[in-house]
Amino acid sequence: MSDAPPERVETRFFTCGSDADPFPLFQGGALPGFTLAYETWGELNEARDNAILVFHALSGSQHVAGHNPEIPGLGDRWIPSQHTGWWDAFVGPGKVFDTRRHFVICANYLGGCYGSTGPASPDPRTGKPWGGTFPVIRFRDMVETQRRLVEHLGVQRLAAVTGGSLGGTLSCLYACLWPDDVERVITFGTGLDVPTLQRVQNFEQIFAIEQDPNFRGGDYYDGPPPVYGLALARIIAHKTYISLQTMERRARREIIQPDDHFMQYRLNHVLESYMNHQGLEFTKRFDANAYLRILEAWQRFDFATEAGAASPTEAEVRILEETARALRTDLDEEARRAVEAEVRARVLRELRIRALSRGRSQRHLVVTIDSDVSFYPDQQDNLEQEVREAGVEVERATVHSAKGHDSFLTEPDLYREAVTRILADG
Amino acid sequence: MSDAPPERVETRFFTCGSDADPFPLFQGGALPGFTLAYETWGELNEARDNAILVFHALSGSQHVAGHNPEIPGLGDRWIPSQHTGWWDAFVGPGKVFDTRRHFVICANYLGGCYGSTGPASPDPRTGKPWGGTFPVIRFRDMVETQRRLVEHLGVQRLAAVTGGSLGGTLSCLYACLWPDDVERVITFGTGLDVPTLQRVQNFEQIFAIEQDPNFRGGDYYDGPPPVYGLALARIIAHKTYISLQTMERRARREIIQPDDHFMQYRLNHVLESYMNHQGLEFTKRFDANAYLRILEAWQRFDFATEAGAASPTEAEVRILEETARALRTDLDEEARRAVEAEVRARVLRELRIRALSRGRSQRHLVVTIDSDVSFYPDQQDNLEQEVREAGVEVERATVHSAKGHDSFLTEPDLYREAVTRILADG
Repeated sequence: MSDAPPERVETRFFTCGSDADPFPLFQGGALPGFTLAYETWGELNEARDNAILVFHALSGSQHVAGHNPEIPGLGDRWIPSQHTGWWDAFVGPGKVFDTRRHFVICANYLGGCYGSTGPASPDPRTGKPWGGTFPVIRFRDMVETQRRLVEHLGVQRLAAVTGGSLGGTLSCLYACLWPDDVERVITFGTGLDVPTLQRVQNFEQIFAIEQDPNFRGGDYYDGPPPVYGLALARIIAHKTYISLQTMERRARREIIQPDDHFMQYRLNHVLESYMNHQGLEFTKRFDANAYLRILEAWQRFDFATEAGAASPTEAEVRILEETARALRTDLDEEARRAVEAEVRARVLRELRIRALSRGRSQRHLVVTIDSDVSFYPDQQDNLEQEVREAGVEVERATVHSAKGHDSFLTEPDLYREAVTRILADG
Repeated sequence: MSDAPPERVETRFFTCGSDADPFPLFQGGALPGFTLAYETWGELNEARDNAILVFHALSGSQHVAGHNPEIPGLGDRWIPSQHTGWWDAFVGPGKVFDTRRHFVICANYLGGCYGSTGPASPDPRTGKPWGGTFPVIRFRDMVETQRRLVEHLGVQRLAAVTGGSLGGTLSCLYACLWPDDVERVITFGTGLDVPTLQRVQNFEQIFAIEQDPNFRGGDYYDGPPPVYGLALARIIAHKTYISLQTMERRARREIIQPDDHFMQYRLNHVLESYMNHQGLEFTKRFDANAYLRILEAWQRFDFATEAGAASPTEAEVRILEETARALRTDLDEEARRAVEAEVRARVLRELRIRALSRGRSQRHLVVTIDSDVSFYPDQQDNLEQEVREAGVEVERATVHSAKGHDSFLTEPDLYREAVTRILADG
């Protein structure tokens, strides 16, 4: 809590496996080893139980806090706006996550573009970037690889896994897969399912990238990258990260020039100019293939299955039977499909609860931002309810903010009390 | 209200002006004459005061009701799903808009692609499609051209102007410009301003079309059209037309095939498949340039100015003065910008009310669909309030529907009572 310049941090690299010892992937196939780019803050204590694993969000990086002006191999993609950590307001000495007390770890997702193995990395078998040949990655693979890193760092038990947005989803998955090695789960603006609106907006983004002719099926590293497709994807997503008021406020800083164009279209409102800049800025710092692979993992996400809860229990079978009786022959096709969809949703819910119940020794803090339109508050209602039904101790905190989803990145004072309380207990 | 096959209707064409007698455009420049494609139903009465002018929505056509299997010059763009009129459930003998009593008129927008002069039409000076050289069209131009058609048809006074979505916006504009010649305004799910979320989603669509390399600045008629850009634009818009429940219900009819791809991406959910089909189907029936010009007219829409209310009144000056006092020097830059934005919004509102007040002899029915996420109900709250403050007699009806915005196309029974009442009176 001082005005001292932020601490200098370096990204390190953890490599695991090889062509001879491949890393199997959840969707099938394997990687001939992988590398994770990661950073740490603070010190691991003697009991090796004060570590906090942070999962970044979709377009985040391992650079959580402090100052890092350069990451080997990234070149221009590591742009100055990233040199201060994306959660620097939350992580550091005396901050919400206090690095005098905790050893904080964050790694770039497998499939990412900030130094971890991803589509832009060279395939060791050809020496050329993977591009379109990079295999399908699932969230399970992302947490499996981070598990190896946590073991490598000698952590005995994680004091917490935490993250906002997709980072919260991954935190829950990690906590279910290694329940005895995680004490607390702290999630901000997240959820375990993919609601309809989110699924459609994700698909719009996938469509935007794939249809850019420079994308060329992902094999664009020897030519111009799919800048416009990626920019449009970012515009589509960006409007969900901040509240409309915040968007209007930020747009008011823009000035429209008479010759301000997007291609042939003459921009005529500051909002257009603002969104255009947001989209194009993003393309300087992110790889389209990496973005696409993470989106695809999200579209395919199935919490229960990826957490290892595979076959139905008695309870699920009972639900199926009850529903089967409801499937009367006098229902028309559409009504039957609706009932089937309801059955699937109920079974998935039962399976999620079973997976979550592995974490009965954990404590979970579910934080909601009331103005969130990326992960809506009702997604956290579901999460809280399912965690509770799973028999896990759960606390809920709702933050009142006008800023929308991204509040969890910028308003530490709103979160301090709830996080401090759960980290102090036990 | 019979099961008889729908009446056969033909599109007719109204041409006005020429290179020697050009049609001036609101944004500047002129068209060397124009043609409107239109249809009519019922008969104009002797007093010539029983006509209803229908404005279609963004991607609609002049073909409101009945059966029309062919429109000269359109070729494959007039696909079978359009052969029955888009408002056939509402317009016809004994229907909500009863063609035994009223003479119903609908014309394709200037700038459209169903037979009215638009970017795909030949520029008479070159004989080649206008393409990227087609001038910027404003909503004012769309209603001005329809005014000429109404005069041409010999209508003395319109019993009503009506439309849903953008068609409602155009109805209001028409009614303000020729207040003595319009008796009633009936609007469904519409608004007079462009809210932030709508403006952003419109910009996403413009971005999607412009960045398709086949778009080539609009000059694509001698090559492949920008199918993917237009499909993506439609996907982005489509999710706002129907409720999420309706989307889920419709998607349940889709079946994912193991080889169901969009480009390289393997579709893995029925929602993706549904949206993909929606987007690609749309490209068979719509011209990207026309779509873009209508979107651009929407982004540039300024109700008060286009309705001719130009300079501030005393009331507006007073607001400015009050606000100027509020602009204290101790405000920081951001706070000052916020106050300025508030002033602009208040002045625009005053100007809209002044424009609307020209219609004091009219009656206005404002219909809201409670599940609408294209034009949200609060937009109709604003419209109702402003119409009322303008001294116009206004009725409000709220339809409870799970179907979202498109309810006004498909659920006539929910609208019959309110529309019948306003049409019966007077």
